[in-house]
Amino acid sequence: MNKYLNSRVILNPNETPKEWVNIIPNLPIPMTPLINPMDGKPASFELACKIFPKSCILQDSSIEESIPIPNELREIYVKTYRPTPLHRAYGLERKIGIKGEGIKIFYKNESLSPTGSHKPNTALAQAYYAQKEGVKELVTETGAGQWGSGLSFGCNLFNLKCTVYMVRASFLQKPGRKILMKAYNAEVYPSPSNLTESGRSYYEKDPEHPGSLGIAISEAVEHSLSDPNIKYSLGSVVNFVLLHQTIIGQELKIQFNKLHIKPDILIGCMGGGSNFGGFIIPYINDKINGVQSDLEVIGVEPRACPSVCKGQYIWDYGDSAKKAPILKMYTLGHNFIPSPIHAGGLRYHGMAPIISILHKKNIISSVMHHQTEAIAAGLAFAQAEGILPAPEACHAIKEAIDQALKAKDNNEKKVIAFNLSGHGFFDLSAYNDYLLDKLIDYELPDIEIHKALTADDMPKINETEF
Amino acid sequence: MNKYLNSRVILNPNETPKEWVNIIPNLPIPMTPLINPMDGKPASFELACKIFPKSCILQDSSIEESIPIPNELREIYVKTYRPTPLHRAYGLERKIGIKGEGIKIFYKNESLSPTGSHKPNTALAQAYYAQKEGVKELVTETGAGQWGSGLSFGCNLFNLKCTVYMVRASFLQKPGRKILMKAYNAEVYPSPSNLTESGRSYYEKDPEHPGSLGIAISEAVEHSLSDPNIKYSLGSVVNFVLLHQTIIGQELKIQFNKLHIKPDILIGCMGGGSNFGGFIIPYINDKINGVQSDLEVIGVEPRACPSVCKGQYIWDYGDSAKKAPILKMYTLGHNFIPSPIHAGGLRYHGMAPIISILHKKNIISSVMHHQTEAIAAGLAFAQAEGILPAPEACHAIKEAIDQALKAKDNNEKKVIAFNLSGHGFFDLSAYNDYLLDKLIDYELPDIEIHKALTADDMPKINETEF
Repeated sequence: MNKYLNSRVILNPNETPKEWVNIIPNLPIPMTPLINPMDGKPASFELACKIFPKSCILQDSSIEESIPIPNELREIYVKTYRPTPLHRAYGLERKIGIKGEGIKIFYKNESLSPTGSHKPNTALAQAYYAQKEGVKELVTETGAGQWGSGLSFGCNLFNLKCTVYMVRASFLQKPGRKILMKAYNAEVYPSPSNLTESGRSYYEKDPEHPGSLGIAISEAVEHSLSDPNIKYSLGSVVNFVLLHQTIIGQELKIQFNKLHIKPDILIGCMGGGSNFGGFIIPYINDKINGVQSDLEVIGVEPRACPSVCKGQYIWDYGDSAKKAPILKMYTLGHNFIPSPIHAGGLRYHGMAPIISILHKKNIISSVMHHQTEAIAAGLAFAQAEGILPAPEACHAIKEAIDQALKAKDNNEKKVIAFNLSGHGFFDLSAYNDYLLDKLIDYELPDIEIHKALTADDMPKINETEF
Repeated sequence: MNKYLNSRVILNPNETPKEWVNIIPNLPIPMTPLINPMDGKPASFELACKIFPKSCILQDSSIEESIPIPNELREIYVKTYRPTPLHRAYGLERKIGIKGEGIKIFYKNESLSPTGSHKPNTALAQAYYAQKEGVKELVTETGAGQWGSGLSFGCNLFNLKCTVYMVRASFLQKPGRKILMKAYNAEVYPSPSNLTESGRSYYEKDPEHPGSLGIAISEAVEHSLSDPNIKYSLGSVVNFVLLHQTIIGQELKIQFNKLHIKPDILIGCMGGGSNFGGFIIPYINDKINGVQSDLEVIGVEPRACPSVCKGQYIWDYGDSAKKAPILKMYTLGHNFIPSPIHAGGLRYHGMAPIISILHKKNIISSVMHHQTEAIAAGLAFAQAEGILPAPEACHAIKEAIDQALKAKDNNEKKVIAFNLSGHGFFDLSAYNDYLLDKLIDYELPDIEIHKALTADDMPKINETEF
């Protein structure tokens, strides 16, 4: 068969994975618990279930190596967009001058979901479990809106009400995602709002307050606690979200197996860590148990918010308002305010505990890129492959190109795969700014990070107590 | 297998059609020629080749029943997005209350191309042929930008320069598509510009002139004639564009055959007629030659621009500036200015000659819908199926719902299929206007249509002369 007819590996619906891969039992050190910010002790099962759907909480600390994807949920995955294709980046390889060098670049295309990113992988799962448990409504926060639209999509398909607290600055500046959420029947409020106590404390002083993700999280958590029929939903960071995302890496494995190819380098961008985690986890066991111990796994961060590259592996609050659980993770400090880069999904101060452990134990590595070099790489990708990538995904593309060029220099034949986590149709201003030479590269003074990490209000957790 | 695992019929790359279906030899009356607006005579082959790539001109009047898709082009189709899935609309069926009635609704998902619509089907083909013939640049016009971005995508992949004259009002109001075109390396100019004689006549009087598709066409044609290495490219109406789009209906047939199902009703929206033509043509032969003579085929128009429903089948100019060829088609008159509906792709004054003949001979029928009912149907679809449709496609959805409800009333078991020609991520303002109850339903006074159709400058063509 002509090679191009193999350039997009498409799976049949019945090849959609039947289970998620749980990395927790194979982690080199035990998973740390979620800590209740009110008392500094591990959150009780009962407390956690007040906030999240019970099935998700059970998954969050499960020690089973795999967890079945319920058939009804799998049907919805299939009906809407899964499996997604694996593309060979022939165009990009030619454009960067590595054609004929024996270096292969592949990308998994998560941009084809109805909301344009990997977020529905967990949104559908969370909405499914919530509905099964009789929950009537899911509430969440959103910054730029990628997660909010994913959850709105998921709730709508499972007949749940969805409420989204959207950072007011984004609510006003980025109407597109807000309209999309409303089209999916969600209620979207600019945050800080006057609907919650957390919001009112800001709103009453300034009804035009631009808001922050920290405030929006506080509002959503408070909203969820107001009624037992309402649960809170998270789009990244926690274990069960990464679990749901492993459908990506599971498919990737099937696709590479069909090509009789093993990837040498896996690359993904890291914000809270969910697309990266979902992409790599099914391969991590192979690396840990020695089946493929030389596999390189690289997480890419923006220089404006390098949680892993420049943060510390410590206990920290999940949000700036200190209402969400305390996690042991790489963090820049919950008071850290990242610069306004276009990759809104990469602006979280912390990193998923699972990813943090893998990094701490040197199973994965991390790099940083400036947004200008990331968007430049994304533009080269768009021109070579035809797909306009989200600014977040541009960071992975930049690293994939760098790795390919390095392999060429070293005369090595590498197979490089990265996760195209989403498309850039809602982020055209990033490309416009780049084309007009108006993108700003934010570099962080180490002093700022130090200040955030040593703030007086960092949590004091005594691990020996649990 | 569970029915949901059959809810999205996915083809393998090697099932991508190897030929396009040419309807011309099977039309019940002979295809009319393109007329040179300068002399009212059929355009010579030489003249046509000055404007369009030669291969496209040869296809435009071919009497072969099928035309092979060049292998290299087919590879690019496969590498980027084809084949596209056929979805069973289980969610929509449930939402409109026809579940269990034996009525099935399907849709072909053309929204998954990298620019979000069916336009790349012909953009890639035109760029391929242009490159093969040594052409260096393709130039076109665009209104809202769906076609302009499709052609930019196609030219970029085949290393051709692409120049787009974009109606200034859209250039200013809809920056998204403009940025997308620039990301694909296209040069985009607001029209009227000061780069062409046609543009300058407007530009010099008013540099802020909002422009029109008619003026933009004139600028693009003039630009193409300035250099033999530059050709003009059209995104709809002409025969070869509909030919390229038949890849849609060809795939549809393969997909329905896999399900052992025959559609009873085919539905598409009609602007210039290319997505509709591409969707239906492979089935039209079956209807004409009696294999399935009871197949219903319905084209849907907006009430604001009902070329077929309210126009006349006569000779008319392809553009308001009278520089493009004269065609025999259903038309509202080249001076007709449609109201500013959100479905920018359905605002053309005429209709593809192929579609016009099929309608004139009662092989297909046509209906009209208001944009409010179309967007309402699109919103119901988004909530039921998860995909936000383009305003153009909403018109097809509205008719599909109407046909399903009619079948239910009549106790008939119908299989209904429509073409989802594109997604609505660039048209969120249409949904916002609907949700805010701000959509205007434009109804055309018959007197206006009469005025446009009887204007003094309508072309006088003597068919007996050729």
